[in-house]
Amino acid sequence: MDYSSLCAHIRQTASYLCVGLDTEPGRLPAGFAKTPEAMLAFNEAIIAATHTYCVAYKINTAFYEALGTAGWECLKQTCQMIPPGKLRILDAKRGDIGNTAQAYARAFFEELGADALTLSPYMGHDSIQPFLEYPGKWVVLLALTSNPGHADFQLLRLANGRYLFEEVLLQAQNWADPSRLMFVVGATQSKWLETVRQLAPDNFLLVPGVGAQGGDLAQVSKLGLNPQGGLLVNASRSILYASSGEDYVEAARQAAQAIQLEMKGQLRAFPA
Amino acid sequence: MDYSSLCAHIRQTASYLCVGLDTEPGRLPAGFAKTPEAMLAFNEAIIAATHTYCVAYKINTAFYEALGTAGWECLKQTCQMIPPGKLRILDAKRGDIGNTAQAYARAFFEELGADALTLSPYMGHDSIQPFLEYPGKWVVLLALTSNPGHADFQLLRLANGRYLFEEVLLQAQNWADPSRLMFVVGATQSKWLETVRQLAPDNFLLVPGVGAQGGDLAQVSKLGLNPQGGLLVNASRSILYASSGEDYVEAARQAAQAIQLEMKGQLRAFPA
Repeated sequence: MDYSSLCAHIRQTASYLCVGLDTEPGRLPAGFAKTPEAMLAFNEAIIAATHTYCVAYKINTAFYEALGTAGWECLKQTCQMIPPGKLRILDAKRGDIGNTAQAYARAFFEELGADALTLSPYMGHDSIQPFLEYPGKWVVLLALTSNPGHADFQLLRLANGRYLFEEVLLQAQNWADPSRLMFVVGATQSKWLETVRQLAPDNFLLVPGVGAQGGDLAQVSKLGLNPQGGLLVNASRSILYASSGEDYVEAARQAAQAIQLEMKGQLRAFPA
Repeated sequence: MDYSSLCAHIRQTASYLCVGLDTEPGRLPAGFAKTPEAMLAFNEAIIAATHTYCVAYKINTAFYEALGTAGWECLKQTCQMIPPGKLRILDAKRGDIGNTAQAYARAFFEELGADALTLSPYMGHDSIQPFLEYPGKWVVLLALTSNPGHADFQLLRLANGRYLFEEVLLQAQNWADPSRLMFVVGATQSKWLETVRQLAPDNFLLVPGVGAQGGDLAQVSKLGLNPQGGLLVNASRSILYASSGEDYVEAARQAAQAIQLEMKGQLRAFPA
């Protein structure tokens, strides 16, 4: 999905919600077995309940990889279940080079059919380049994450006066234009979102951490939206596990709809 | 495998060679199909030919993940083939937090039975901590990599006068003692190896890039060995693909033996 299609889909749907399929067997609602097959059935139900209200799905690959061969198969089938027109993001946070990066690009973009992949910047430009060689696919680069440890390195002050995450934002824009490059910016860092938007005015920002991790949607939207949209806000657990009972589908639907309604209001502030 | 067992094994074997099983279907010798099953048969032959000369195997997970479900199964079976007493390193370069990191730790340490796992430092201490909760398992943290892009961020000068990779070396030592924590240091950066050894005198260093990537074993050994050993030097393609013909097993054996013989000489400079 290209930049203009994504922007158009945000306007049509009146939503920039990304539903995070961070599905854990141990957290499935009552009545589900704790198996990859049950995860798949759960994912199918969640996708059916939420696709009207979102523009993207983000799959955290770790939860599937943890289940071995059967988990990988579940990951593949979940990717295939996502309706056409929704951005399929694989949250794998990879970072490697050369033929290894090529192998990952092949695995995620070809084998699994992802549109976008999260990557870690630590190894530099040649750990990103192989992924950019797939036309129409997106790189989603970690810039400022929402976990406590983000301060250890991302907020180190450089000799040039910038923070490390600022240097990541600036250098990465030399590697790809905004039609191929998004940044991960944690919502718990809303004081930094304004800085990020200044340094990367046109890039999509993927903001996790609204909901279970404590971000504030109104604040994130105010600081993160740009005239094109330019923002994807992820919610995972607050939707997936909105109810642990038999009404989990309806609860997930309502949770997604509530976020979409707030987003609709926020988008009004940015007429297309 | 704990620190003292690894040191003892290095002395017994007179080797600090790590054989990298970066097996690619397209590079298998004549007569092999380009399938995960053929990769497994190749890996089995390589392990049988080299285990006398090495102390560790490093499996680059990307090459297996790229092959989907069958690749993951091949990865699992390759792990199981590695003889007891050899350190099993999974080169996955993961970096994530909380329940995601726990899922990865479970996948790699429990499901696949790895002894050690490579991790990226960008997300900070809470992306490392879940892996340290597995007693007897090692974290192998990226510090200074051997690819051209290492200069983009790892060699940024901080306001405190250090390079970013130096800060990684120093901070990480607050998270774990040398019995659980190794660092990846690229061999093409031998001018930095001395610095690394000063900042991390007791940690094992995992040095890729000798052989195909152009490092120099004598120089790396001189700068990287410490009185306990403290060094693992990885060679992948120069062993795996020493011959593309039917003599690939003997060629791999000879390539591993040649490295081990040089290592034996280097170890003499550090009497136990």
